[in-house]
Amino acid sequence: MTQGNPPSGKKKKRKLRFFKRQTKPGAMPGSVVVDPQAPPSVITVIAYGPDRVVEERIKDVAAVRQYLDRWPVTWINVDGLGDAEVIHKLGEMFHLHQLALEDVVNVHQRAKVEGYGDHLFIVARMVSWSDRLETEQVSFFLGRNYVLTFQESVAGDSFEPVRERLRTDRGRIRQVGADYLAYSLIDSVIDAYFPVLERCGEALDQLEDEVIEGGNRGVVGRVHEIKHDLLTLRRAIWPHREALHELSRDPHPCIADGTRIFLRDCYDHTVQLIDLAETYRELGSDLRDLYMSSVSNRMNEVMKLLTVISSIFIPLNFIAGIYGMNFDPSASPLNMPELRWFYGYPFALSLMATVATTLLVLFYRSGWLRRDR
Amino acid sequence: MTQGNPPSGKKKKRKLRFFKRQTKPGAMPGSVVVDPQAPPSVITVIAYGPDRVVEERIKDVAAVRQYLDRWPVTWINVDGLGDAEVIHKLGEMFHLHQLALEDVVNVHQRAKVEGYGDHLFIVARMVSWSDRLETEQVSFFLGRNYVLTFQESVAGDSFEPVRERLRTDRGRIRQVGADYLAYSLIDSVIDAYFPVLERCGEALDQLEDEVIEGGNRGVVGRVHEIKHDLLTLRRAIWPHREALHELSRDPHPCIADGTRIFLRDCYDHTVQLIDLAETYRELGSDLRDLYMSSVSNRMNEVMKLLTVISSIFIPLNFIAGIYGMNFDPSASPLNMPELRWFYGYPFALSLMATVATTLLVLFYRSGWLRRDR
Amino acid sequence: MTQGNPPSGKKKKRKLRFFKRQTKPGAMPGSVVVDPQAPPSVITVIAYGPDRVVEERIKDVAAVRQYLDRWPVTWINVDGLGDAEVIHKLGEMFHLHQLALEDVVNVHQRAKVEGYGDHLFIVARMVSWSDRLETEQVSFFLGRNYVLTFQESVAGDSFEPVRERLRTDRGRIRQVGADYLAYSLIDSVIDAYFPVLERCGEALDQLEDEVIEGGNRGVVGRVHEIKHDLLTLRRAIWPHREALHELSRDPHPCIADGTRIFLRDCYDHTVQLIDLAETYRELGSDLRDLYMSSVSNRMNEVMKLLTVISSIFIPLNFIAGIYGMNFDPSASPLNMPELRWFYGYPFALSLMATVATTLLVLFYRSGWLRRDR
Amino acid sequence: MTQGNPPSGKKKKRKLRFFKRQTKPGAMPGSVVVDPQAPPSVITVIAYGPDRVVEERIKDVAAVRQYLDRWPVTWINVDGLGDAEVIHKLGEMFHLHQLALEDVVNVHQRAKVEGYGDHLFIVARMVSWSDRLETEQVSFFLGRNYVLTFQESVAGDSFEPVRERLRTDRGRIRQVGADYLAYSLIDSVIDAYFPVLERCGEALDQLEDEVIEGGNRGVVGRVHEIKHDLLTLRRAIWPHREALHELSRDPHPCIADGTRIFLRDCYDHTVQLIDLAETYRELGSDLRDLYMSSVSNRMNEVMKLLTVISSIFIPLNFIAGIYGMNFDPSASPLNMPELRWFYGYPFALSLMATVATTLLVLFYRSGWLRRDR
Amino acid sequence: MTQGNPPSGKKKKRKLRFFKRQTKPGAMPGSVVVDPQAPPSVITVIAYGPDRVVEERIKDVAAVRQYLDRWPVTWINVDGLGDAEVIHKLGEMFHLHQLALEDVVNVHQRAKVEGYGDHLFIVARMVSWSDRLETEQVSFFLGRNYVLTFQESVAGDSFEPVRERLRTDRGRIRQVGADYLAYSLIDSVIDAYFPVLERCGEALDQLEDEVIEGGNRGVVGRVHEIKHDLLTLRRAIWPHREALHELSRDPHPCIADGTRIFLRDCYDHTVQLIDLAETYRELGSDLRDLYMSSVSNRMNEVMKLLTVISSIFIPLNFIAGIYGMNFDPSASPLNMPELRWFYGYPFALSLMATVATTLLVLFYRSGWLRRDR
Repeated sequence: MTQGNPPSGKKKKRKLRFFKRQTKPGAMPGSVVVDPQAPPSVITVIAYGPDRVVEERIKDVAAVRQYLDRWPVTWINVDGLGDAEVIHKLGEMFHLHQLALEDVVNVHQRAKVEGYGDHLFIVARMVSWSDRLETEQVSFFLGRNYVLTFQESVAGDSFEPVRERLRTDRGRIRQVGADYLAYSLIDSVIDAYFPVLERCGEALDQLEDEVIEGGNRGVVGRVHEIKHDLLTLRRAIWPHREALHELSRDPHPCIADGTRIFLRDCYDHTVQLIDLAETYRELGSDLRDLYMSSVSNRMNEVMKLLTVISSIFIPLNFIAGIYGMNFDPSASPLNMPELRWFYGYPFALSLMATVATTLLVLFYRSGWLRRDR
Repeated sequence: MTQGNPPSGKKKKRKLRFFKRQTKPGAMPGSVVVDPQAPPSVITVIAYGPDRVVEERIKDVAAVRQYLDRWPVTWINVDGLGDAEVIHKLGEMFHLHQLALEDVVNVHQRAKVEGYGDHLFIVARMVSWSDRLETEQVSFFLGRNYVLTFQESVAGDSFEPVRERLRTDRGRIRQVGADYLAYSLIDSVIDAYFPVLERCGEALDQLEDEVIEGGNRGVVGRVHEIKHDLLTLRRAIWPHREALHELSRDPHPCIADGTRIFLRDCYDHTVQLIDLAETYRELGSDLRDLYMSSVSNRMNEVMKLLTVISSIFIPLNFIAGIYGMNFDPSASPLNMPELRWFYGYPFALSLMATVATTLLVLFYRSGWLRRDR
Repeated sequence: MTQGNPPSGKKKKRKLRFFKRQTKPGAMPGSVVVDPQAPPSVITVIAYGPDRVVEERIKDVAAVRQYLDRWPVTWINVDGLGDAEVIHKLGEMFHLHQLALEDVVNVHQRAKVEGYGDHLFIVARMVSWSDRLETEQVSFFLGRNYVLTFQESVAGDSFEPVRERLRTDRGRIRQVGADYLAYSLIDSVIDAYFPVLERCGEALDQLEDEVIEGGNRGVVGRVHEIKHDLLTLRRAIWPHREALHELSRDPHPCIADGTRIFLRDCYDHTVQLIDLAETYRELGSDLRDLYMSSVSNRMNEVMKLLTVISSIFIPLNFIAGIYGMNFDPSASPLNMPELRWFYGYPFALSLMATVATTLLVLFYRSGWLRRDR
Repeated sequence: MTQGNPPSGKKKKRKLRFFKRQTKPGAMPGSVVVDPQAPPSVITVIAYGPDRVVEERIKDVAAVRQYLDRWPVTWINVDGLGDAEVIHKLGEMFHLHQLALEDVVNVHQRAKVEGYGDHLFIVARMVSWSDRLETEQVSFFLGRNYVLTFQESVAGDSFEPVRERLRTDRGRIRQVGADYLAYSLIDSVIDAYFPVLERCGEALDQLEDEVIEGGNRGVVGRVHEIKHDLLTLRRAIWPHREALHELSRDPHPCIADGTRIFLRDCYDHTVQLIDLAETYRELGSDLRDLYMSSVSNRMNEVMKLLTVISSIFIPLNFIAGIYGMNFDPSASPLNMPELRWFYGYPFALSLMATVATTLLVLFYRSGWLRRDR
Repeated sequence: MTQGNPPSGKKKKRKLRFFKRQTKPGAMPGSVVVDPQAPPSVITVIAYGPDRVVEERIKDVAAVRQYLDRWPVTWINVDGLGDAEVIHKLGEMFHLHQLALEDVVNVHQRAKVEGYGDHLFIVARMVSWSDRLETEQVSFFLGRNYVLTFQESVAGDSFEPVRERLRTDRGRIRQVGADYLAYSLIDSVIDAYFPVLERCGEALDQLEDEVIEGGNRGVVGRVHEIKHDLLTLRRAIWPHREALHELSRDPHPCIADGTRIFLRDCYDHTVQLIDLAETYRELGSDLRDLYMSSVSNRMNEVMKLLTVISSIFIPLNFIAGIYGMNFDPSASPLNMPELRWFYGYPFALSLMATVATTLLVLFYRSGWLRRDR
């Protein structure tokens, strides 16, 4: 489900590694090697026509064929990529290319579209936020009368609203073909980016408030984390743009012209998402600069306080040091006659007061004591 | 009217969130869900021909049809998007696409142009400055003999000069068709960016003066704010460029060739605005660098003062400390004989003066006391 | 003449505002509103053929027509844009488009080329340096047998060498048509950028020397100023490139093929200017980094001096402080017996000397006292 | 094998020099000058058909011809470029262009594809990590029934899995032509970048943990090293993209259409690699900023500690200094009467305590003593 | 020969000015104004055919014609641009365009290619390193049977290896036409960039070592110098790329198809050079960051040492100060009874030792004394 899912018992942390290839370098192209830690595959079928809808969990891949024969549109959804046999059998049933199947199990693909004669292969990346940012690859095969989807995890997905619409026959979804179903699913994947990006925006918003109100030193770390997430998001969204552009523009027998206008709308959303992610990243950088300059300013204040205190007391201490010397007055009338003056002590104290006042006035005049300098 | 309009009673602040989608992720595409907090819709109709003009506020959407039938050009303006029924009825009357209507109520769209058979759908973003930067989405539908505009807020807009020209028949606006009206409205939206950008330029101007005259530590915060506004502006203007390029270049039955030359002029303005926003952002960065380097310089000055004062007085204090020791002169003639010298005290004082003078000369020679170093 | 010409009596300063639109936002497109502060228009006509040339200052716009009829090429130059009537009459005489005339008086246009049937409209930006960087818009209308130029100011321009060539019949300028004249004028505008950029380069050169020889704290301010000027220059030059590319490439009846090769040369110059401005801006940034790192280094030196002096004298002062305590030797033989030792004072002094020497050796060994560390 | 392979006995270090041209500037184009330090050439031939495979190390170049005649596909692999004669003879046998042969021995080429009539010349860069990042040039000549590869080093390469597949007849590799072999080899070169990039990602991951947990000052150096490696990797990968794009798109008689789809997959991998390298470089920069800001914060903490301690003790020392002065009480009743007060000493001590407490409270109130400020 | 050749007697320094135009702004286009300080022109002719070669220095330009008539290929090389007459006569003889001749003497051109009917005009920039980076413009005119080259200086050039090849008939250079000669000359110009860039790489390499081994404060200056040189180099190389792309792609009667493949190779080299210059500039920036962070770290160390020493000794000094006060023990038993304790002095000393040890332990525990923090 996630990239770099940490083994339980280890502390949860963000991971820089964006992927972990299953296929070894130099391995035979098109070899489908499942991740031994991947959850076992669960197959769900939703088949529907304008009037009826059926939703079933099946065990045997062969059972899929009867849905394909009887229903206008069949959606086969596979959760979990741990079962190589299931993937192979589906590959054979739908005549899928080996390279496409390899991409299904190597869950680090960039979003892309590839046309293979009678079907389209689409890779997208689903995003979710539970405690931290997580992404999951979803692979789509779109044929004349079916949509076949593979998800990494068996946990929840962004497709629930689409299922709900299929069940309740809201909108025109049951009236139209498999291409509209595929669009609806892709659209729900893209839409799920908005709340995640909004969360980043809100976090930056809050950090900006904190910095302006005085800051605290965890700020840079948190900005770093958000920028990291934004980088991951941008990296995930970016290729969708090209893929959707291709889908909405290049003619393919599996996609009706009426659906293209919806895909164009979806493409507009990816442009907006990329735009937003870029803007937030720039804001993050601006925020870090703002924070760093407030740190610099505070250090300046600290240094000024130290300098003012030192500069005032060091001369006073020097005067006290002078009159603490033990020159013998009896040896010479020149030896510290002040010590025996009648007003000697008041003289020394007022000398100190004069020096301190003079320095304070000087500092004040040069603007050092003003906080806002 | 604004993005993230804060509830009254809460302190007014800038918001990083650029939008808040009304449609839930995965919702049915083309569903028009109005924001419950949006102001109720107010419909105003201005219908005109070369000789006459009529301007009316109407309650019933059906009343629009009679204007369309009788007048050469009708402009229906809807202020406030709180009334789903109004939007639906207008959509039906003008055969507007569901996706376009969804974009009308989701007021976070990027500027864009979409052609739908007999009408054009244009989204623009209006900018205003009242205490802080605010943007508002305006949606245009341009048909053969009508312009239909939707604005987020019921408050003032940039269209007043156009209304004035329609009323007084200045220029050729009443002689020409609906496309020229649409151009005039878009032009007034674009033109409204100039004073807002100018305000940013003036603010930067003033901050530059302050930094050069000595700076004050709010500078970085204010530069940050201006850069934030410029980012918002650039993000708002940028897509207008592409949209206007498309409008002025791609042929569409709703736009006469004579109007294209005006749209090209409008496109030139967006290029100029983007250019300006970029330039100001660069100036903002340069200004922050200038400020940070002046902070660094001031810290250097502070450190130098501390160092000079410490370096001069620490040796003096040391001499005073020496002669403050209590070695017993009676125990040995070697024990601090200076204390009983006839010129002991003057000797100590002049030793101090010599040390201080030497250090001052050294500092002066090495250029430390010069301010401009 | 300048952007943001400051009223006399106010201190002269650089302005960030690059322009001040005369036309109000939302105003009627194509409305020619002259700046009330613009100088009154002065019209000069130079008409010439291969054999003769005539140069006259005229008062009445109508007088222009007779030159057009009698001479192969007529150049009408208007200095100062304060006279709306002159501009309108010329617009009528030459059938100029309202939008073009609006651009003539809104002197903040980017350089551009616009073809209008039988004439070309070209906007360029003239640069000059008198005490500070100033730019001025020049608008050209190029027809079959005339060139009409509008300049913002009545003061000197870059066209004098072209006038001189016309008068003395140097080169082939009088043998060829109006298009070659227009080229010569544009070329003189572009050429005038070179000395201004060279001045920036020399200033950077000098600042680099200063920084390397020890720097002074005005450096960052001056680098900032130069970068500001370079930004203005780049912003002014950039659109010329596109405009000249268009001029030299797109066929237009007003431009002969023989002139295109000259325009291509002129285009090469703009590429060179942009290249140069970019390079200088990069050099400016590098220079600021160099300066900032030298500030950092100096602060490091200051801190090291403070630390060395403090670290050496603080322990010495501590020893002096010890022997300055007043423990009563008569109360116990343990109470500061050193004070009554025969070699007590020399012991204390040599203890201090030992400590100081040890510390100095330690600092020296660890490389702190070396300047070049 | 490596760029800048250091002579043994010298300490191993990274090298900035990416290459060392063998050909002298201005030398005759197409001259094949072998590096005198290059290892001697070792020729291995693998020839195969659907049913059989033979693998042999040969001494005489002429022996190659018999394989070409008898086997469907022959792969001639040359390890080590030290033998000019071998290269020349192969060049003659396969009619290779002089410029291509020059590129084979000048092992600093960017990846590229060049079509020469009946064969293709492909340059790729193999990457490996043994203690440090190393790259090696591999040159491919792809003809109708042969693949000729030149490797810089005689040590191991990324081709072993391909050899294994040829030997064991896994996949369809022995069924198809030389173009598929070339693809398999290039694919194994590209695939080898993934683990190296993953290693960089893991190193950044670990450094991020260290910085967040408190940092240590080797961080910047190590980030610098990783960024350096990423720069090298990006520089190596980048041109592969263009080359593979060309290979998968431009028709060439040596490449069957069926192989193009595999090359497109390979191209996708290069896009992904570039994307990853860019992302990691950005993360490296973010990490350095994070570290630098933590250094700034720590310096701030240090300065605050110094300031707090100094600010508290300097006034106390001053009080002690006052009462350490030797004014003669017998000379005047004004001379330090406190010294003879009954509660003189407790008064002085409590004065000090009061001052210290007051300062501590002030510091606490202004938030200075809080760590997280 | 160099840009900004400094007058002897003045200290040699790098110059920011990249050029100094000879032509005054606004001067007649195509006017050939020689630099009065340019060295006098020296004309050398090398004429050759497959069998013979002749090399002569000539005085009279007219003598060139007989070579053109008698030899298959003639290369006329002009060193030094001080002789306007020579340039004019050659211009007339070969029918060269005035604008091209102007570019020959204005030795600040960007590399470019311009086709003029029966000949090609090519500008390139030769680079050399003698004590510092120097560049020199070389202009080529390539006709059917001649190459005419103009060099700024009379000193050595990069063409010697080509001359040597002509003399000794190595390679096929004497068998082929003037286009191959032109290619060989351009190739030798491009090749000369490699050692200069390598020198920059080595310098960065060495600086990196220095920074890692402890740095020295000249580093930033030297990085700045190298980045400056790299900027100059990149600026010089960049336009060659476009020019060579044009040469190798656009058909021109003067260039045979067989030569194009060589020009494509030459183009590859410019791409590699640009790539390298960019990489080195990035490395320079990374290096400066590395250095600046090591400066920051060192300053942190300095501050920590100061803070540790101050924090330990200030309390000790305070204790010594306390017992240095002169409260009169005879006035009250409360006045500093410690002074008369039997163990008073040891008590004070051990109090100090306790305080110092406690502080040291605290510092050690908080990790301050560890160097690598």
